Amino acid sequence: MSLETEIKDVLARVRQASKSLALCSTDQKNAALKDLARALRRSATAIVEVNREDLNRARTTGISGAFLDRLALDEPRIEAMARGVEQIVSLPDPVGETIASWTRPNGLAILQVRVPIGVIAVIYESRPNVTIDAGALCLKAGNAIVMRGGREAVATNRELAGIIAGALERTGIPPQALWFVDNPDHETVQILKHQTGAVDLIVPRGGAALKAALRDSAVPMLPHFDGICHTYVDRRAELKMAEEICINAKCDRPSVCNAMENLLVHRDIAREFLPRIARSLKEAGVEIRGCERTRELLPNAAPAADSDWDSEYLDLILAIKVVDSIDEAIEFITKHGSGLADAIVTDDPIAASRFEAAVDSASVFVNASTRFADGFEFGFGAETGISTNRLHARGPMGLRELTTYKYIVRGSGQVRV
Amino acid sequence: MSLETEIKDVLARVRQASKSLALCSTDQKNAALKDLARALRRSATAIVEVNREDLNRARTTGISGAFLDRLALDEPRIEAMARGVEQIVSLPDPVGETIASWTRPNGLAILQVRVPIGVIAVIYESRPNVTIDAGALCLKAGNAIVMRGGREAVATNRELAGIIAGALERTGIPPQALWFVDNPDHETVQILKHQTGAVDLIVPRGGAALKAALRDSAVPMLPHFDGICHTYVDRRAELKMAEEICINAKCDRPSVCNAMENLLVHRDIAREFLPRIARSLKEAGVEIRGCERTRELLPNAAPAADSDWDSEYLDLILAIKVVDSIDEAIEFITKHGSGLADAIVTDDPIAASRFEAAVDSASVFVNASTRFADGFEFGFGAETGISTNRLHARGPMGLRELTTYKYIVRGSGQVRV
Repeated sequence: MSLETEIKDVLARVRQASKSLALCSTDQKNAALKDLARALRRSATAIVEVNREDLNRARTTGISGAFLDRLALDEPRIEAMARGVEQIVSLPDPVGETIASWTRPNGLAILQVRVPIGVIAVIYESRPNVTIDAGALCLKAGNAIVMRGGREAVATNRELAGIIAGALERTGIPPQALWFVDNPDHETVQILKHQTGAVDLIVPRGGAALKAALRDSAVPMLPHFDGICHTYVDRRAELKMAEEICINAKCDRPSVCNAMENLLVHRDIAREFLPRIARSLKEAGVEIRGCERTRELLPNAAPAADSDWDSEYLDLILAIKVVDSIDEAIEFITKHGSGLADAIVTDDPIAASRFEAAVDSASVFVNASTRFADGFEFGFGAETGISTNRLHARGPMGLRELTTYKYIVRGSGQVRV
Repeated sequence: MSLETEIKDVLARVRQASKSLALCSTDQKNAALKDLARALRRSATAIVEVNREDLNRARTTGISGAFLDRLALDEPRIEAMARGVEQIVSLPDPVGETIASWTRPNGLAILQVRVPIGVIAVIYESRPNVTIDAGALCLKAGNAIVMRGGREAVATNRELAGIIAGALERTGIPPQALWFVDNPDHETVQILKHQTGAVDLIVPRGGAALKAALRDSAVPMLPHFDGICHTYVDRRAELKMAEEICINAKCDRPSVCNAMENLLVHRDIAREFLPRIARSLKEAGVEIRGCERTRELLPNAAPAADSDWDSEYLDLILAIKVVDSIDEAIEFITKHGSGLADAIVTDDPIAASRFEAAVDSASVFVNASTRFADGFEFGFGAETGISTNRLHARGPMGLRELTTYKYIVRGSGQVRV
C-alpha cells in the first residue's frame, strides 16, 4: 500500500471520529482535558525519559543551542503544559454559540451557530509542547486533529500523543479523533497538503522551511508566518512615549514575530529623537542599521542595505529610516511590512486615523507597542497563533478561530414562491 | 515576456489600485455604481450588438439550447443588470463596520473593524451578467477585481468590463482596480490560481470543469459548487406539509443548487406518504428513481442505481429512499450530501434538534424548503453565491463575506511587561 493510500485510510477514520467529537458536550470535552492534565503530571518522569532519547539523538547529529532548548522537556515544563490544558478547560466552549439570529418576514427563524471546523492538521517543528497545546485547543473547539511534528521530537511527540489518546479513551471520546503521524518524512507533509475533503484546515507552526513546504497547499491554512513589524514615530509624537514604546517593541522579546524590526522616524523630530533612542538602544545592546539620513545623525550606526528593510531579524538588530511624511511611512510599511503588526506614535488625531485606515496590517497600533499583538494580550484566554492570512481569521487567534458556523433555519411549512 | 510574467505585472498594478479603492468613501463607491447603471442603459444597443458577435460565433461551433440562452443579452436583461447595480448602491457598505470592540484592563481599546479583502479574482463561465453582478459587489466591498470569463462570452465581457472601467474613471477611482483578463485560454486560470500574494481570493462560478481546473488552487477560494440537497420526511411529519415542501424543493427551480435531489422517507409513514407524493411528483413531470422498498410501494418507479444517490440531477428527477430511522437518514446525508442544504420535516422537537445538530450542512432546515438557501431569502440583500467552503464564509453569502477585518488598537503609551 502506498504512503498516500495509507494516509487516506487513516484520515477516513479520523473524519468518522470527528463527527462524534463534534457532538460531544462541553462537559465531556472538559472531562477529557482534565484527565489529560492529570495524565501529564502522572507521566512526567516517563515523558522526560523519552525526551532524553530525542535530545541524545539530536546531539549526535550536531544540533545544539536554542534548538535543543526548544526540544527539551523537564518537570517544570510538563507542569506548565498541564496548567495550560487546565486553563483551556476554564475557557468558554465556542461550539454551539449563536453568532446571530433573525426572523424573516415569512416567519423563517434563521440562526447562525458556531460549529467545529472538522479535521485540523497541525504541522509543527521541534517544540513538543505544541502537541499538547494545539491538541487541547483543537479538542476544546470540537475538532479532530492530525499531528505532524518534526523529526527531532518524534519520540516525545509520540509519547504525548499517546497520553492525549488515553485521556480521550477514558472519557468516552473516540481516540481516532487524534492521529499522530508517526512518520516525520518530508513526504507526509506533501501528501497531507493535498488532502482536501479529508483535512479541512492546516495550522502550520514553524519557520521558513515549513512555509516553503506548504507554499502550494491545496488544503486551506491558518499560517503564522513572518512578522516584519514597524513603528513610525510621527512629527507630533511625544518623544518619551515613543522611546518607551520602541524599546519595548524591540527589546522585550526580540525573538518573536511581534517584535519591531524597522523604525521609521519623521524628519522633523529626527534630530531630537534619534540620538535619544540610539542611547537607549545601545544600552539594551541593539545594533542599529540606518539609512543615510539616520547615519548623518548617528554616525556610529552601520549602513542599512536594501535587504535590511525586508529582514525579520528576530534579534537585537534594528533598521532605522528617516521619512519625509506619514505618507512615506505608510508606503514603506505597505512595501516592507508583513502585515502582522505595525504602530504609530503620535499626538495628532488626524495622523493616527490616517495611519489606522491606510496601514493594511492585521493589528494596527496607535501609541502602543506591537508586542501586544497576541491572543492573551487581546483577552482571548488562549493563544492559537497569529494568523497572517487575510481570510477566515486574521491577527491574534483564540478558540473561536478554530470553529466555523452553520445556519439553522426553522420553519412551519414555508415554501419558496 | 511569458504569459505568467505579463499577468504578474498587471496584478502588481491591480494591487496598487486596490489600496486606493480600499480607502474610497461609501459615497464615492456608490457614485461609481450609479454611473455604471446609467452607462449600462446608455450602452444597451452597443452591448446587444457585441453580444450578437459572441452568439454567432457560438452557433458556428455548434453550441445551442440553455448554453446559448445563458450567453444571450437583450435590452430587458441589460435593464435587469442596471437595476441589480442600483440595488447594490442601496445596501449598507460593509467596510468600516466595527464588528466588536472592547477595552483591556491596561487601557488598550481594541476595535475589530471590517476591511476589504484586497484583490478578488472572479472566474466564471458563459453568463456575461456575472461581469456586472460580481464586479459591482466586489467594488461595493472595496475590492479590486480580476475578471476571467469564459471563451464564448469574451466580446460581451470585454465590452461590459470596459463600461465598468469607464464608470470608475469618471468617478475618480483608478480603473486599474478592475482587470478583465482578455485571454480565455485555460492557461490563464492555471496561472491565476498560483498567484498567492497577488490575488487574495478566487470566486469561481461555474460547473464541474471549473471545479476540476481549480482543484489544487493555492489561492484561497470561495467556491459555489455542487448542491446535492436532501429532504428527510420523519415518522412524525405532517404529511401535507411534507408534500408541499418536497414539491417546492424539487420542482420550483430544478436547475439550481438548492433544489432537492434525494428524498428520504421514514418507513413508518412510507406506505401513506409515498403514493401521495408520487402523484404530485408525477403531475409535476418528475421522474422517480427508488430504492427497493420505495418500488414495493411505487411499482412504476425506476430502480435507483448506486450512482443516483450521488447525482446532482439539476433536472426533474428525484431519487427516493425509505429509511429505518432518523439516524439512518443522518448517516445517509453525511455520506451522500454535499453540505449545501438539507431539510427535515417533523413535528417531533427531539428529532428536529437531533437533525439540526448532527447534519453538517451549511444550511439545515426544519419544516421548510431547501430552496430558501439563498442570500436574498436570508435577507442579505445581495447574492454573492452560496459558499461550499467550511472556512471564512459558509452557506449563503452577502457583501460582508467579501470583506475581512483588522484590529485597531488604541493606547496611550502602553508597553508590554
